[in-house]
Amino acid sequence: MDEVSRQARWEQRTEIPLAFASLLFLTMYAILVLAQDLPGAWRDLCTAVLSLTWAMFAADYGVRWRLSGQGLRFVPTHKLDTVVVVLPLLRPLRVVKVYEAVQHRHGEPRLSLYARVITYAGLTTVLLGFACSLAVYDRERGAPGTEMHSFGDALWWACATLTTVGYGDVVPVTAGGRTIAVGLMACGLALLGAVTGSFSSWLVQVFSLESDRENVEGPPGS
Amino acid sequence: MDEVSRQARWEQRTEIPLAFASLLFLTMYAILVLAQDLPGAWRDLCTAVLSLTWAMFAADYGVRWRLSGQGLRFVPTHKLDTVVVVLPLLRPLRVVKVYEAVQHRHGEPRLSLYARVITYAGLTTVLLGFACSLAVYDRERGAPGTEMHSFGDALWWACATLTTVGYGDVVPVTAGGRTIAVGLMACGLALLGAVTGSFSSWLVQVFSLESDRENVEGPPGS
Amino acid sequence: MDEVSRQARWEQRTEIPLAFASLLFLTMYAILVLAQDLPGAWRDLCTAVLSLTWAMFAADYGVRWRLSGQGLRFVPTHKLDTVVVVLPLLRPLRVVKVYEAVQHRHGEPRLSLYARVITYAGLTTVLLGFACSLAVYDRERGAPGTEMHSFGDALWWACATLTTVGYGDVVPVTAGGRTIAVGLMACGLALLGAVTGSFSSWLVQVFSLESDRENVEGPPGS
Amino acid sequence: MDEVSRQARWEQRTEIPLAFASLLFLTMYAILVLAQDLPGAWRDLCTAVLSLTWAMFAADYGVRWRLSGQGLRFVPTHKLDTVVVVLPLLRPLRVVKVYEAVQHRHGEPRLSLYARVITYAGLTTVLLGFACSLAVYDRERGAPGTEMHSFGDALWWACATLTTVGYGDVVPVTAGGRTIAVGLMACGLALLGAVTGSFSSWLVQVFSLESDRENVEGPPGS
Repeated sequence: MDEVSRQARWEQRTEIPLAFASLLFLTMYAILVLAQDLPGAWRDLCTAVLSLTWAMFAADYGVRWRLSGQGLRFVPTHKLDTVVVVLPLLRPLRVVKVYEAVQHRHGEPRLSLYARVITYAGLTTVLLGFACSLAVYDRERGAPGTEMHSFGDALWWACATLTTVGYGDVVPVTAGGRTIAVGLMACGLALLGAVTGSFSSWLVQVFSLESDRENVEGPPGS
Repeated sequence: MDEVSRQARWEQRTEIPLAFASLLFLTMYAILVLAQDLPGAWRDLCTAVLSLTWAMFAADYGVRWRLSGQGLRFVPTHKLDTVVVVLPLLRPLRVVKVYEAVQHRHGEPRLSLYARVITYAGLTTVLLGFACSLAVYDRERGAPGTEMHSFGDALWWACATLTTVGYGDVVPVTAGGRTIAVGLMACGLALLGAVTGSFSSWLVQVFSLESDRENVEGPPGS
Repeated sequence: MDEVSRQARWEQRTEIPLAFASLLFLTMYAILVLAQDLPGAWRDLCTAVLSLTWAMFAADYGVRWRLSGQGLRFVPTHKLDTVVVVLPLLRPLRVVKVYEAVQHRHGEPRLSLYARVITYAGLTTVLLGFACSLAVYDRERGAPGTEMHSFGDALWWACATLTTVGYGDVVPVTAGGRTIAVGLMACGLALLGAVTGSFSSWLVQVFSLESDRENVEGPPGS
Repeated sequence: MDEVSRQARWEQRTEIPLAFASLLFLTMYAILVLAQDLPGAWRDLCTAVLSLTWAMFAADYGVRWRLSGQGLRFVPTHKLDTVVVVLPLLRPLRVVKVYEAVQHRHGEPRLSLYARVITYAGLTTVLLGFACSLAVYDRERGAPGTEMHSFGDALWWACATLTTVGYGDVVPVTAGGRTIAVGLMACGLALLGAVTGSFSSWLVQVFSLESDRENVEGPPGS
């Protein structure tokens, strides 16, 4: 029980700084990719901050692993945390848990299952789409034959890919860009599954609730 | 009970005028976008009617809010009404409720759950597709390098986007057009989820009903 | 009971001729579209056979309506038959019912629900894809700027559309072709829903059955 | 029981050699397609090894058929094995069964239903995508008007097709390549159904398990 409370105290204290650190991480990466004409000293600073924030995530993961006292069982039971260390861009996903903890303390009910799935899927889509746009734009910029002339083109391409629309007016042409693109496609497919599955279940639920509510209120004109 | 009946009376009296107003709203917007060579005076008239109908929707929303006596709880419990004020193009969605109220008064059973989901999803698709085609065409017309030369091209693009086919022969090239397009893609994804989920459930139901019916009638040749 | 048996006798006697008639209908339409350099007399003959087979379907529908003695209730309870009169290309869908009737007479169990859904969806896809390819090719042939130079291109386009892949290397450019294409996209979306829904349910069933079977047989090496 | 144990012994002894043979099969086919400037003698050797491995799969199938003593009922009850003989590229799919048998012997629980579906679908996607890329590249290479200049282009095309994104920047233009492409599209649709269906079910399960776990551990900060 003491282990759990020490763990909980650690999470409570680090949550807010780490949420800011994740935003800093994303901002630094975006600056490094988009502001090409920045003086070298500033770029070095950004790289340093980027490494530092990542080191913070790794350190936080290590501390929580030790406090948990679970040994190797920690990794499979904390999948989201593990993914966050490898892909710090997804760190803001933890915001959902923090929001729920806050709501719980105020005695309010937690989010419904479908609201959580939609929130996780939506946040993942936005963060992954933004990060992949940056990474692909970084590789495509100036490649011969590319149609990706601005970061706006990269965002447009990411949206068309994540929704599996795939116009093909803007596509990556370099090997690096295409490799990241395949990852984004796979995520798009998974997110499509999440959205399709949960949206349809949610829709069915909403309609049944609505019909119950109408029955209680009585039909219009009665 | 008195509150409810005043609310119901208000809804009964405003339903028909507001349904016409929503059609007027769509028509005025379409005229403004498509009839570019209209004399200035006519265009001003259309703009005035457009603003007026929107003001009517806002006023109707305000009156119903006050009559409900619910305070801030009105917004989350009347999501469709709130969306309609922001996007008056979706107003005709209320037609489904009116149709059900009419059927209810005649003592007929309400639509099945799947019929309602399909009706809502289908109507939303048609209205959003039409409105987004207008909005995108308005921004793309005459843009350098665009392939969207007529409103027919815009409609064709909207259909290919909503079904996530995405040929890419006609695509928006301006920032404004692409922003609207991303919204349409997201709607397409959501509608795909609704259609996929409800269609498959409906299909399974139809087949079970059919097999029951055949068992009652006896097989052919018996 | 007498009504039912007269209806059943009629269906038994007309099933085989009408199945051949539907194949004849498809063949005549394909000949009219693909064999452009046929002498006029032959083309007139094909048109005549086409009209005759369609008249046969309409007559069969009328006779079955009268025999049913159901009045207007016949239309909603025989949806597939009604669709077949409007779109005779879908007539071969009735083959599934005939196959099941034959199996029933031999005392074999009917197809499982998922097998039937997959069969209907697959047959509809093949028939609609083929018919729409013919209709679109008929309109696109020789249109300025088209990439659809052969019937093979049209088939390739129909496959890419029905699976919602939508490469966009071959697309309809005429208003008529695009109108049919929108219908095909909508069918593709519906069929995607059917395939996705039933395939995933079927997959889950198969795996549970397989695991039951393994438990009965014992694991390998035991 | 004797039949079963002889069958099990045969499967145990052939599993490892046949797993290597399937990798050999894939490698030989890849070499034949990709290494065009190989001396004729080496190519003949590859062809010979390719035929030999396929003959091994056929022989294994025949032996197991006889040992089963099931007659014609063997084919419908061993669908995966039958598919493997026709498409030896899918042989590695049996790895899942071997993995489960090994885990079973060590007393560990078998994979959950969703893990198995995802594993099968993922493996099938990777193997089919790789094999179809090879087959399509073999047909497209050097075709007039093709954009598929390297095997990397073919892999990129296969990924965009399997996820139904379909950019259309690289598409097959020959009749042979398009025929294989239609097969890949159909597989993509089926795999989309599998991923969508199982992912959404799995997601729902994960969230319910997570909420149970949180309830047991107590909320953070309590």
